[in-house]
Amino acid sequence: MSSEHAYTSLPDGAVSADVETLARNILDGSTRALARGLTWVESGGARAEALCARLYPNTGRAQIVGLTGAPGSGKSTLARALALIARARGRTIGVLAVDPSSPFTGGAILGDRIRMSDLALDPGVFIRSMATRGALGGLSRAAADAVDLMDAAGLGLVLVETVGVGQDEVDVMRLAHTVVVVSVPGLGDDVQALKAGVLEIADVHVVNKADRDGADRTVAELRAMLTLLPSAEGTWIPPVLPASAARDEGIEAIADALDNHMAYQKTSGELERRRRKIVTARVLRIAQDLVAVTVLAGALGPEGAERASLLERVARRELAPHACARALLARAAGRAAGGS
Amino acid sequence: MSSEHAYTSLPDGAVSADVETLARNILDGSTRALARGLTWVESGGARAEALCARLYPNTGRAQIVGLTGAPGSGKSTLARALALIARARGRTIGVLAVDPSSPFTGGAILGDRIRMSDLALDPGVFIRSMATRGALGGLSRAAADAVDLMDAAGLGLVLVETVGVGQDEVDVMRLAHTVVVVSVPGLGDDVQALKAGVLEIADVHVVNKADRDGADRTVAELRAMLTLLPSAEGTWIPPVLPASAARDEGIEAIADALDNHMAYQKTSGELERRRRKIVTARVLRIAQDLVAVTVLAGALGPEGAERASLLERVARRELAPHACARALLARAAGRAAGGS
Repeated sequence: MSSEHAYTSLPDGAVSADVETLARNILDGSTRALARGLTWVESGGARAEALCARLYPNTGRAQIVGLTGAPGSGKSTLARALALIARARGRTIGVLAVDPSSPFTGGAILGDRIRMSDLALDPGVFIRSMATRGALGGLSRAAADAVDLMDAAGLGLVLVETVGVGQDEVDVMRLAHTVVVVSVPGLGDDVQALKAGVLEIADVHVVNKADRDGADRTVAELRAMLTLLPSAEGTWIPPVLPASAARDEGIEAIADALDNHMAYQKTSGELERRRRKIVTARVLRIAQDLVAVTVLAGALGPEGAERASLLERVARRELAPHACARALLARAAGRAAGGS
Repeated sequence: MSSEHAYTSLPDGAVSADVETLARNILDGSTRALARGLTWVESGGARAEALCARLYPNTGRAQIVGLTGAPGSGKSTLARALALIARARGRTIGVLAVDPSSPFTGGAILGDRIRMSDLALDPGVFIRSMATRGALGGLSRAAADAVDLMDAAGLGLVLVETVGVGQDEVDVMRLAHTVVVVSVPGLGDDVQALKAGVLEIADVHVVNKADRDGADRTVAELRAMLTLLPSAEGTWIPPVLPASAARDEGIEAIADALDNHMAYQKTSGELERRRRKIVTARVLRIAQDLVAVTVLAGALGPEGAERASLLERVARRELAPHACARALLARAAGRAAGGS
């Protein structure tokens, strides 16, 4: 009963006036309203949650593409090139950059930034960067909400760019319909091993800077590696595409691969499975963040003395960790139902 | 009330006979019983939880040292060398290897394995490897429970070895009183960036294979990097120690650094803070695993049709993700209180 209450009590008709106004302006395509909504979403909290809940029924139309790779792999140049092609094909684009090395987030050299601002002058392109470290693992929650806002605002293609390192960034990639992993020639075995978690989630491989020595070998190695993965008849085999984003070579083929992957997913029914996976991963992460807030507030906050004392009892070996986890989980659920 | 029930209802006096027998044999120092208990812990479930709860009051005496670094950094050779020194200093040792590239887990060349088995013949050394991928992120839960069992069995020093890659492995390192991060000369900037998450948790840095070109530069770079970290007067500054584990050079200095770090933590009161942090991280991870089981069972399991339908409603844009997360969290708490 109380859990039923937990979701039926969320704002439906009872959305406050400023949330409703902002939501309508976002739906009308106001970039100013979208920018403001994204600022809300970055901060998180009840206001952001109300806005996202209000807009959620209007999402689900955008094609969401994730772009990840090691720092220095040229992802951002590639993102820009893909954005230009999508514009030429008559689509509107949102770019969400959560990569500290991206020119979108201001980490790049001046030349890159100038080229970016050219793109930014196009009213059919909306660019936004996000801080890479939110409080309590909130990055993937914030990124998912930000993608929803861009989707609700009517942007047809949303490119989400992360650096392929942490679990948070991998979680962000799990929001995408298609994940592009960017490699470059000449990275050693260590890096390949470190990237393993990212390679698993690739739908399209790009070997960027393909004019460099060793590009053919990197392409061949990736293809060889892909043959080792289990795959049933008729399933999608990630293409490995050489490119040089800086020279604008191979970009059309990547844009085509993105379209092909979406077409494959639609005809095979994979898109519905993917959408369910995205929803499940997203809901799980939100629930886990809610638990983290409760457990860590117990350890750190001014309130929650009872929670702190449970942890204290574990530290004194009077209460087992599993028992404490169950007790704190019950408190997190109570707190979440309260809507804090 | 129900949450109070969640932990007071856990087995105390009511431990079943086989759990009680195994627990007593572990406390008596039977390595056979310890090996069996670790098998329980690896499988997880109610039996493992009961055993861990029974033994938990007898933990907290071992010194827990985490050892991490990139594949090929020579961590395992270093672990062996440190184990030999600790034996020479009269201590008993447990080694828990959760690194797929470790000779403890069988990934190494024959020569290494033979040297390992020499160590394994010593009754004062207990070696155990664990699979690196458990179900639903259960690796750090299982590793923490395994360390507890070794601790309860009276092993004085527990070395936990992981490869410094995934979030799971970083979580495992958060169990340790002292974390040793092993680097090698000549890794590029990309790898340094990828390792950033691991570098943050280092208490002692080892530059292994210090006979290689570029070792001095790597040591200097790490020291320079450490001066950039904020540190108050009198706090621990991680030493950067060159070593060659294969030639048995520099190992005594590392063993001394481990002792110095523990002594520092005891006199400064840092050890209590660390223990609280370890407990908090561990309890949080268990609670989040419990949530994952509920949410993913909703998506995948034969039961839980109601949970699946909540996720389905999110996929159909009828229910917002945050609202669904709150509802599923309440169910996870109910399920956890039931003690499944």
